[in-house]
Amino acid sequence: MDKLIEKIELMKNPTVVGLDPTLGIVPSFLKEQYLAKDMIPTENDYSLAVAKMFFDFNKQIIDNIYDIVPAIKPQIAMYEQFGTNGISAYINTCHYAKIKGMIVIGDIKRGDIASTAESYASHIKGTVINGKEFDFWKEDFVTVNPYLGVDGIQPFIDACNEKDKGIFILTKTSNPSSADLQDLLVDGEPLYYKTACLVSKWGELAMGKKGYSKVGAVVGATYPEQGVELRNRMPHTFFLVPGYGAQGATGKDLKGFFDQHGGGCIVNSSRGIIAAYKNDKECSEKDFAAAARKAAIAMKKDLEQRF
Amino acid sequence: MDKLIEKIELMKNPTVVGLDPTLGIVPSFLKEQYLAKDMIPTENDYSLAVAKMFFDFNKQIIDNIYDIVPAIKPQIAMYEQFGTNGISAYINTCHYAKIKGMIVIGDIKRGDIASTAESYASHIKGTVINGKEFDFWKEDFVTVNPYLGVDGIQPFIDACNEKDKGIFILTKTSNPSSADLQDLLVDGEPLYYKTACLVSKWGELAMGKKGYSKVGAVVGATYPEQGVELRNRMPHTFFLVPGYGAQGATGKDLKGFFDQHGGGCIVNSSRGIIAAYKNDKECSEKDFAAAARKAAIAMKKDLEQRF
Repeated sequence: MDKLIEKIELMKNPTVVGLDPTLGIVPSFLKEQYLAKDMIPTENDYSLAVAKMFFDFNKQIIDNIYDIVPAIKPQIAMYEQFGTNGISAYINTCHYAKIKGMIVIGDIKRGDIASTAESYASHIKGTVINGKEFDFWKEDFVTVNPYLGVDGIQPFIDACNEKDKGIFILTKTSNPSSADLQDLLVDGEPLYYKTACLVSKWGELAMGKKGYSKVGAVVGATYPEQGVELRNRMPHTFFLVPGYGAQGATGKDLKGFFDQHGGGCIVNSSRGIIAAYKNDKECSEKDFAAAARKAAIAMKKDLEQRF
Repeated sequence: MDKLIEKIELMKNPTVVGLDPTLGIVPSFLKEQYLAKDMIPTENDYSLAVAKMFFDFNKQIIDNIYDIVPAIKPQIAMYEQFGTNGISAYINTCHYAKIKGMIVIGDIKRGDIASTAESYASHIKGTVINGKEFDFWKEDFVTVNPYLGVDGIQPFIDACNEKDKGIFILTKTSNPSSADLQDLLVDGEPLYYKTACLVSKWGELAMGKKGYSKVGAVVGATYPEQGVELRNRMPHTFFLVPGYGAQGATGKDLKGFFDQHGGGCIVNSSRGIIAAYKNDKECSEKDFAAAARKAAIAMKKDLEQRF
């Protein structure tokens, strides 16, 4: 978490770009390049073509933003839907971003009972085979689901401490139906305050040196009032904030998610950056990566309203 | 769900075997066979060796149980920790079990906002590339996390209806700390009753023909009283019950999870079956698959206490 904070301070930019490509987002010239019309449509050939296409798309975006944006957050579902080849594209994307000096937040939302969570924690902890340790996933952070309670979280906390990595635990998510469970009243308060309280408590087990824990919280940008309240209740918890841009929130809405120094928070935008070329009249689809840079700069400026 | 019920009735056995191999469970002769001492320990060679070992281990168990056990439930975390090669072993295991006529419950516990859940739903819905549809994952069911509410669930329900597949939504999990969130009181009742109520309601959107919905619930065997209460509250919801055996519950504890005809429920055992050779004095580690069959027969007999 300290490294993420340093990187944000260095770039004066609390932004993370969600690298969530879909066949609808990737420009058609890239689709034509990788999915040739005369291709034999076998499962492996097709998914490999998509995997290479997604990596190429991501690589061009990373090349255009790595000097102004501190982190990426690839959403693994977008890759997982193309099987193992898709997952290779996810891992290659994480790896490439790290080579370019970016912080990688793997949006995997895993959560399970203790022995299984131990296996999932290998995403940030690595995996030992015959006494040799391997980092198969190349992530610095992952997102985690709290529904199973602390024994599904503890292996991740241990990994955070052992490897100086981090997690973000779902607290109040950005989607409309997050209310179904998260807003149910417990002791007169919504459930997500209880989650917040647990996340804070768990976070004390893995404090960084800059006032924030390695255990952060996912708090949706689409609920600004709740964001302010959670910021007050969780002074040592760093926020990962999805829901900016395409999901509706703007920089003005987000002031309250930050601490008094404009820190403590990183805001994600996915489609608003990677599909920016679709709404940018000055850019053709060939300029998709340049359009992404432009959108990232505009977002950085918009977030200056936090001060 | 109807197919699962038929298969359970045919075999008179409401058991699912959790194929969750670890390097600690796989017998040492298999480890020596696949992880040769003079191997070059590259990331790919090592993870490929483990993937092949896990698949071989699983295949031998499947070969020894497919005629008496209706379903397998591989836990994807056990494979995911070995990167893409591990995930190939997961998919190959699912595929092989289907070839042998078994039902496959992918224990993936995914859950995300709508657009992302749509991608995760490809696990059971398939993925379309250039108008061709592929089934990369080979699962019949998957497990899903409810923390994000209905818009994370709806794409799975649609997939269930479109492809005649099913899901099990985490309701009351088997682990000790499931109480952290799931037992918090909402309107004087534990939260998991609210989850149960949502799961029931969502289930009405995907009813099968045998009285049960394609949308099932995960209800831990380690909480028998809660199981009885949930059975009463969810008459049309089929239960997937983890926590038998190694986690502590026995057949006697589980009577209340079944309906009055001894149906409506499938019980999972993982280590109790696949690592049975370790506690079976009549079996050497070479007989691990025969020991698994013996343990599966004993479990079937134990579960007859449901009547």
